[in-house]
Amino acid sequence: MIIGFDADDTLWHNEDGFQATARTFENLLGAWADPDEVGDRLFTIEKRNMGRYGYGVKAFTLSMIEAAIDISDGHIDTVHLQTIIELGHHLLDRPAELIDGVVDVLDAVGSEHSLMIITKGDLYHQLARIDSSGLKGHFWRTEVVAHKDPGTYRELLGLHGVLPREFVMVGNSLPSDVLPVIEIGGRGIHIPYHVTWAMEHADPAVADNHQAPTLGALHELPDFLADWL
Amino acid sequence: MIIGFDADDTLWHNEDGFQATARTFENLLGAWADPDEVGDRLFTIEKRNMGRYGYGVKAFTLSMIEAAIDISDGHIDTVHLQTIIELGHHLLDRPAELIDGVVDVLDAVGSEHSLMIITKGDLYHQLARIDSSGLKGHFWRTEVVAHKDPGTYRELLGLHGVLPREFVMVGNSLPSDVLPVIEIGGRGIHIPYHVTWAMEHADPAVADNHQAPTLGALHELPDFLADWL
Repeated sequence: MIIGFDADDTLWHNEDGFQATARTFENLLGAWADPDEVGDRLFTIEKRNMGRYGYGVKAFTLSMIEAAIDISDGHIDTVHLQTIIELGHHLLDRPAELIDGVVDVLDAVGSEHSLMIITKGDLYHQLARIDSSGLKGHFWRTEVVAHKDPGTYRELLGLHGVLPREFVMVGNSLPSDVLPVIEIGGRGIHIPYHVTWAMEHADPAVADNHQAPTLGALHELPDFLADWL
Repeated sequence: MIIGFDADDTLWHNEDGFQATARTFENLLGAWADPDEVGDRLFTIEKRNMGRYGYGVKAFTLSMIEAAIDISDGHIDTVHLQTIIELGHHLLDRPAELIDGVVDVLDAVGSEHSLMIITKGDLYHQLARIDSSGLKGHFWRTEVVAHKDPGTYRELLGLHGVLPREFVMVGNSLPSDVLPVIEIGGRGIHIPYHVTWAMEHADPAVADNHQAPTLGALHELPDFLADWL
């Protein structure tokens, strides 16, 4: 079998860094609005920019700058804006901090199956993360995609000569990692991360009715796969 | 044969938009430094950010914001910064403006060969450009890569089952489109664009000594290929 792994919040921590940055941003804007309002207005601008910017730290940084000017009615000073740019640099520069047990899991699963990374987002940052993770040698193939929809998975599996029925995708996002793979005839395993980006929340009706197995943590994967496949 | 095409400044105009934006940026900063100094300091910041941000409009916009704060010693106002953000939006939103004759060229070359797009840069923006160009149907495959080096071309051709000796790459950049393809045993055709980004200038010793053919314009490609292959 071919086992696909999502990367952010599946192999290494990611969303916690974005959320900590959002808290720092709320404090920076504290003179102009309370934290909830700052968070809401930032998210509104992120959503508005999504089609234009796509996912990633550069998009998030530009949205923070726009939100800071907007929330402060143009009164934010350049020292604060420089701080926001540096928050973005910090997110880009931080090395991939691995999820507990990931090396053992990849050793165990990789001894039975071929492994792929299929990750979504900014091409340069995702490749830098994969390099800094030290995990690259475990993977047969790595792919960075713009969207995780059924068409993208179908095209990608075709390109790599993988049949959907030979493919299992493992990830923390139901709408990105699990449901589209089931839709094209593959299988998905959901391993929730402790925080989820608002943009990745699944429709509750779908989230409650999917047939995919859910694991509590990545280290459960080898035993689960040995039984399931 | 498989014919690979670079996209920015080979199939559609790109660098002219960046350069026009840089001129507008120089005017915006006119109160603090003369245009040459603004341009130099922006380029210094772009180079410093390259390893972290990679190529593309979002990277360029963040570098303009950083440069504006730096050049104005923190005195730039948020109205100007908002203008810079909008310059970035404008670059992202402008539809692909095609190079003269591109549809006829792709029709002619595509009737004899399979065509690929191999383009470097921001994943979301490159895919949006390919979609807005209306050219997608001409291409057998499209690939967005982070770097155009020999290793990337070798891996990409392997993935698509293309032998280097069956592959010709066409593009406006010697160091990105022509020289690395020759290095792995393929062929390259150089079609210069009327302006070249400083980061894409080839080493003059290499630029003067390569063996690749140079065409004056894209519309010369079908006749040239008919003779050459």
